[in-house]
Amino acid sequence: LVGPKDELKQELEKYDYQKEQIEIVHAPDAITCHDAPVEAVRKKKESSLIIGMQMVHDGKADAFISAGSTGAVLVAGRLVVGKIKGVERTPLAPLIPTTKGFSLLIDCGANVDARPSHLVQFAKMGSLYMQYVGGVENPKVAIVNVGAEEEKGNALVKETFPLLKECEDINFIGSIESREILNGYADVIVCEAFVGNVILKLIEGVAGTLMKEIKAGMTSTPVSTVGAAMVKPALKKTLKRFDATEYGGAPMLGLNGLVAKVHGSATANEVKNAVTQCIEFQKQHMTERMKESLGNKKA
Amino acid sequence: LVGPKDELKQELEKYDYQKEQIEIVHAPDAITCHDAPVEAVRKKKESSLIIGMQMVHDGKADAFISAGSTGAVLVAGRLVVGKIKGVERTPLAPLIPTTKGFSLLIDCGANVDARPSHLVQFAKMGSLYMQYVGGVENPKVAIVNVGAEEEKGNALVKETFPLLKECEDINFIGSIESREILNGYADVIVCEAFVGNVILKLIEGVAGTLMKEIKAGMTSTPVSTVGAAMVKPALKKTLKRFDATEYGGAPMLGLNGLVAKVHGSATANEVKNAVTQCIEFQKQHMTERMKESLGNKKA
Repeated sequence: LVGPKDELKQELEKYDYQKEQIEIVHAPDAITCHDAPVEAVRKKKESSLIIGMQMVHDGKADAFISAGSTGAVLVAGRLVVGKIKGVERTPLAPLIPTTKGFSLLIDCGANVDARPSHLVQFAKMGSLYMQYVGGVENPKVAIVNVGAEEEKGNALVKETFPLLKECEDINFIGSIESREILNGYADVIVCEAFVGNVILKLIEGVAGTLMKEIKAGMTSTPVSTVGAAMVKPALKKTLKRFDATEYGGAPMLGLNGLVAKVHGSATANEVKNAVTQCIEFQKQHMTERMKESLGNKKA
Repeated sequence: LVGPKDELKQELEKYDYQKEQIEIVHAPDAITCHDAPVEAVRKKKESSLIIGMQMVHDGKADAFISAGSTGAVLVAGRLVVGKIKGVERTPLAPLIPTTKGFSLLIDCGANVDARPSHLVQFAKMGSLYMQYVGGVENPKVAIVNVGAEEEKGNALVKETFPLLKECEDINFIGSIESREILNGYADVIVCEAFVGNVILKLIEGVAGTLMKEIKAGMTSTPVSTVGAAMVKPALKKTLKRFDATEYGGAPMLGLNGLVAKVHGSATANEVKNAVTQCIEFQKQHMTERMKESLGNKKA
């Protein structure tokens, strides 16, 4: 636990836990969402974000999980932990719930205006992650497109498509339209970060708006309010499947160590699941696998 | 009504309607979704799509509504009806339901890899449409972005943002994140077509998947099934607001006449609303307004 020592100690005293499992590392400063990421990463050396990342860089920690500013996490991951040699861009890859389980949406980070070679690396990293951490055998990889045919798409997709087809390390199944994303046809969904961010936040937005409207609709008449109470337990169980917090944080891939981002509003459950994911990442020697897949060829 | 004369007559005989209100124009051929758009538009001169568009071009029809292949509609609009002089790209702009009413999402057509000047024209056309056809006073225009700050975004958004800010004809309110789209903060939502298509189809996909899951969840136990029956009428009313067919077709803007696209699976209600929109478009002299706003300055 990296942060202001006294505050953390005071908080931990409220809980009953095995003391030897948690070590506190003091960090007096903090990077906030109002700080400009690059400047903050350079200047706030005593912040929890930088001290934690430095521990990953130095091999003193296997992974670092942050609920802080996404921008700062992405910049610090790149500058403090450092990229694997040969990795061109380091993507942020959240797991999104689907009707069949979950898929990895890669990239939702800050790498706007990506090139085809970046997307090919994202496909490889995502595929490794879903195979070893997600436990999916021979994960299906698709690229986000505006139609199913190979000749569709913008310049980036058209250039990337044949490269993915040629790529022997992955199970490329072609294009996926955004309409199909929640159906879980693909385990790894590749796109550049602008589109990835639009997709991720739109899923949250549409689901949130619909749920709010449905709740309001259900309780709009006396009869429906009684019905709503009868429906609630069954509905809750179904909707739990679409609860993003079930899947834990978004890993930032391609680094010399693991960094994972959880929501700023993350629940205990989300953080717990992120920790579990990090343990699996470590157990499966994912950093070494990424190095083998991406590093050597370019080094 | 443009199409195979005998089939149309036979169908119309089933209905009681004012005969003088519907004229049949014979078109023996049809462009299907399996035809390559450009080739089909060049070769299938006797198709309903081409004959109908030609009527708009010749001033024999004020508007043409199609439920056919979107690709063919976009190509034929451009090649047969023709662009307004000075218009660089002709966008497809569907109305999407929001919690406050509806917004225009422009562009969802086939203009991939758009330039900043295209997006500025889309903003102007969309603004005119929402003001005169949508009945929104001083419509708020926003650009789809991955953050609210002006310095965020990909190269296209960063270049377009200051141009929109300078543009005196529109009420530009800045960036909109996809998470906020359904909240209705903006009346005109500007983006390039790849992103627009991703947004449009993802809204449909997420809403469809959630509704299916909710239905299944509601009827998963005997108690919840009884509750579901009690909830249904109230819920239906709420969800009608989010029914895309309420808002009619998507106009293709910037043409020398009006072309509107409805879903291939359009209901009678959707077609009716598209017709109403076309009438309003004509009443408001929209083509002339577009020409004034976009044509003269570049001519």
